[in-house]
Amino acid sequence: MERIEVKEIKQVELENPVLVEGLPGIGHVGKLVAEHMIDELGAEKIAEVYSSHFPPQVIVLANGLVRMVRSEFYAVKGEKQDLLILVGDHQSATNEGHYELTDAYLDIAKRHNVRRIYTLGGYGLGQLVEKPAVLGAVNNEALIEEMKQYGVLFKENEPGGGIVGASGLLLGLGGLAGIDAICLMGETSGYLVDPKSAQAVLSILCKALSIDINMQALEERAKDMEKIVARLREMEQTGMHEVASEEDLRYIR
Amino acid sequence: MERIEVKEIKQVELENPVLVEGLPGIGHVGKLVAEHMIDELGAEKIAEVYSSHFPPQVIVLANGLVRMVRSEFYAVKGEKQDLLILVGDHQSATNEGHYELTDAYLDIAKRHNVRRIYTLGGYGLGQLVEKPAVLGAVNNEALIEEMKQYGVLFKENEPGGGIVGASGLLLGLGGLAGIDAICLMGETSGYLVDPKSAQAVLSILCKALSIDINMQALEERAKDMEKIVARLREMEQTGMHEVASEEDLRYIR
Amino acid sequence: MERIEVKEIKQVELENPVLVEGLPGIGHVGKLVAEHMIDELGAEKIAEVYSSHFPPQVIVLANGLVRMVRSEFYAVKGEKQDLLILVGDHQSATNEGHYELTDAYLDIAKRHNVRRIYTLGGYGLGQLVEKPAVLGAVNNEALIEEMKQYGVLFKENEPGGGIVGASGLLLGLGGLAGIDAICLMGETSGYLVDPKSAQAVLSILCKALSIDINMQALEERAKDMEKIVARLREMEQTGMHEVASEEDLRYIR
Amino acid sequence: MERIEVKEIKQVELENPVLVEGLPGIGHVGKLVAEHMIDELGAEKIAEVYSSHFPPQVIVLANGLVRMVRSEFYAVKGEKQDLLILVGDHQSATNEGHYELTDAYLDIAKRHNVRRIYTLGGYGLGQLVEKPAVLGAVNNEALIEEMKQYGVLFKENEPGGGIVGASGLLLGLGGLAGIDAICLMGETSGYLVDPKSAQAVLSILCKALSIDINMQALEERAKDMEKIVARLREMEQTGMHEVASEEDLRYIR
Repeated sequence: MERIEVKEIKQVELENPVLVEGLPGIGHVGKLVAEHMIDELGAEKIAEVYSSHFPPQVIVLANGLVRMVRSEFYAVKGEKQDLLILVGDHQSATNEGHYELTDAYLDIAKRHNVRRIYTLGGYGLGQLVEKPAVLGAVNNEALIEEMKQYGVLFKENEPGGGIVGASGLLLGLGGLAGIDAICLMGETSGYLVDPKSAQAVLSILCKALSIDINMQALEERAKDMEKIVARLREMEQTGMHEVASEEDLRYIR
Repeated sequence: MERIEVKEIKQVELENPVLVEGLPGIGHVGKLVAEHMIDELGAEKIAEVYSSHFPPQVIVLANGLVRMVRSEFYAVKGEKQDLLILVGDHQSATNEGHYELTDAYLDIAKRHNVRRIYTLGGYGLGQLVEKPAVLGAVNNEALIEEMKQYGVLFKENEPGGGIVGASGLLLGLGGLAGIDAICLMGETSGYLVDPKSAQAVLSILCKALSIDINMQALEERAKDMEKIVARLREMEQTGMHEVASEEDLRYIR
Repeated sequence: MERIEVKEIKQVELENPVLVEGLPGIGHVGKLVAEHMIDELGAEKIAEVYSSHFPPQVIVLANGLVRMVRSEFYAVKGEKQDLLILVGDHQSATNEGHYELTDAYLDIAKRHNVRRIYTLGGYGLGQLVEKPAVLGAVNNEALIEEMKQYGVLFKENEPGGGIVGASGLLLGLGGLAGIDAICLMGETSGYLVDPKSAQAVLSILCKALSIDINMQALEERAKDMEKIVARLREMEQTGMHEVASEEDLRYIR
Repeated sequence: MERIEVKEIKQVELENPVLVEGLPGIGHVGKLVAEHMIDELGAEKIAEVYSSHFPPQVIVLANGLVRMVRSEFYAVKGEKQDLLILVGDHQSATNEGHYELTDAYLDIAKRHNVRRIYTLGGYGLGQLVEKPAVLGAVNNEALIEEMKQYGVLFKENEPGGGIVGASGLLLGLGGLAGIDAICLMGETSGYLVDPKSAQAVLSILCKALSIDINMQALEERAKDMEKIVARLREMEQTGMHEVASEEDLRYIR
């Protein structure tokens, strides 16, 4: 296996699509929004991305079937504009992997002549939020006014810690490649999968894309996702990672 | 030394063998079963795998002789089917190494026309288990019914944290290569080398392979293995790793 | 993206310039001095250095615009001598990256025929310092007497832990390349951005370069920088790194 | 800079020399013995090994002069046999680096037709030892009887955690290259630079090499080394690593 392998699933002709990225992150806000969009819009999977930069494990599905950790691109043709949607199981597990994977994502975007990128995420506040606002960051100053019209907040130097992972690097590396990109971050406690925050982000994204998406299923989807995440957290605490734990290696590192 | 080096020890002609993997992991269940099978079946070593992805150390044997950390392939010809058995000292110490080593293991499997893979491990519960069940995961849905007949349990989305290391990736990468693979996980506390869990796994594996293996020595073998593991744990806690500790480096990382 | 990419911003002809390095470190002393010099001397940016060895994130600027993490070279022509000034957002996030990035910095230095390097940093004492002294280290014994004339202290084997990162390696690798280099370290508590320590370092550097730099803005600049650093620290403690946190990966590593 | 660079300092003709390795480790026993031998025997430096696998820093010498972290080979011609002595500042800071550096050390050994290797280290007991014994490990069973004659102890499966770093890999990789190698480990508390343990190891090594080395300076040399190590430890605890700390990166990793 190469360090990154892209497997094309289906050939599609898209017209200057917009790319929406929703990989795992704080409150799983981006992932929740992107997966909801895929379902509601009936998007089709067009490519899978495998990489040795992902955690060295497989995912166990509901029926006991496993599959490799991967990212996936979905496509949907729309009235106003076509969409590419990027989701996945994990971010890179290595430092350089974040750069290399984002490069690979951008290569796919360029091949489809993507004209704009929205990356989605949560903005962790460490406490419950009644009415989550949506913060923005852009890689082209000209986008700020447009985003403000949709209700996006811009706070000076926020997030102060920068934007980590693919959601950040798609803006940075995308900018170097001449593609406009916006990061939308829904305020969230950061502790749970947050459907309220996801709804806030999705509302703004719908305005920006001039589309309409039913949000009813969002809360239930969040509950399902929370169950999975809770199990991960529990295992993290007990150190009981099934099967090949690194137990034997810990004393070396 | 290359990043991975395979040293052939003995040439054998096997007929579509089944590969059984038992590398170190939770409760050392897989390793215990695989080493027991090698002894009881009189399997012969056919290859050694060396890699700079393994921990940078040597193993000290009973007589004071040392050898490199490595994985080993054993072969045994059977009435019903031939077997390849993969055991080893350690899993990869690096993220990418898990992928590269599993690729190397699969290359050897393909060279021998392996038609099916069983990976063995423990499923850590964090508490003592009276009658350990054996959970399964597969890379081909068609295998589930067959496995259920042998008494394998399939629980929805379990293990929720996925299957880490070679036991998982052999299913994932094996599936991409078109090789059927099953992971058998014996329930275990996760704290000790667990002969009860190993016996549960081995019983099912024997049914699946239509072979008969005496299990009497399993308990004693577990005691021996526990002594070694206990010593490792102790050293881990005191930080007394003999000879070249990373003492000088700790303040940098 | 290559592992290191240098983007030339402006072509300049410099005459055997002196290179001053002020990348992030203890008390942000070096960074504070170097950024102050750029402003007060009106230095122009001539190159940007991007690298997958930097942390995988983007920086969010005051107006919500993001940019890639990077290092920057500034140039200014002077009466006494020309200056190259190296500043940046982060040091390398990987072990090898420190070596590779310093190599890249030295390549740029050599292309401009740099004849001497000053690297700037803080010397952490763990407690408040009323009158911070400036410690020195050199890669050529002949430099010690000259530095003592400017008030630089040389203490036997200090810093005992060596000099970590680009500030150290520019002396080490610079020496192998035949370029004289001096590290100036201002005593500091290590807890806050320290304008007193920066002033002490800058005073000595001005003497060494025979230039005059107004220090009035130094204290205010330190306050601004402290706000940013405090925000980083806070996020570090709460674990609330906006957007793509490594939350999902923590249980693996 | 390449990942490993060997700089030849002096050409020497040695006749099937014995290589003695004393890189940093538990109780700094190996390093203490090897540096003592270099001084007492008047060995000459013949090569320096630089590597981006070493910690990314420079060493500050007594007079404020810095130099790159490195390993060094010394040579001395003897009546009974010629010696090559390997010492250095640090072990590898990366997993693969241990393998790559040991390969490089072995390349130099092979170029000089080294016929035997002694690697030296401490065996940490976690408590004070009145009369330290010297444990042995070998890569060729035929060596055990000879070593016992010099007073080396062989304990079953000890050290149970294996031998980590160059002291172990020189035996493992050396064995694959057909070079006999012995690891001598002096019992030590593991907390301090231990001249008693060093004396025990050196006594046995002198017998094995049929040479005579004055041990008077050993205690004083240990005191000097302890001062340096104590300073490292102190800094490790306060987190005050001078100059370019990784402070800014910690919140990412």
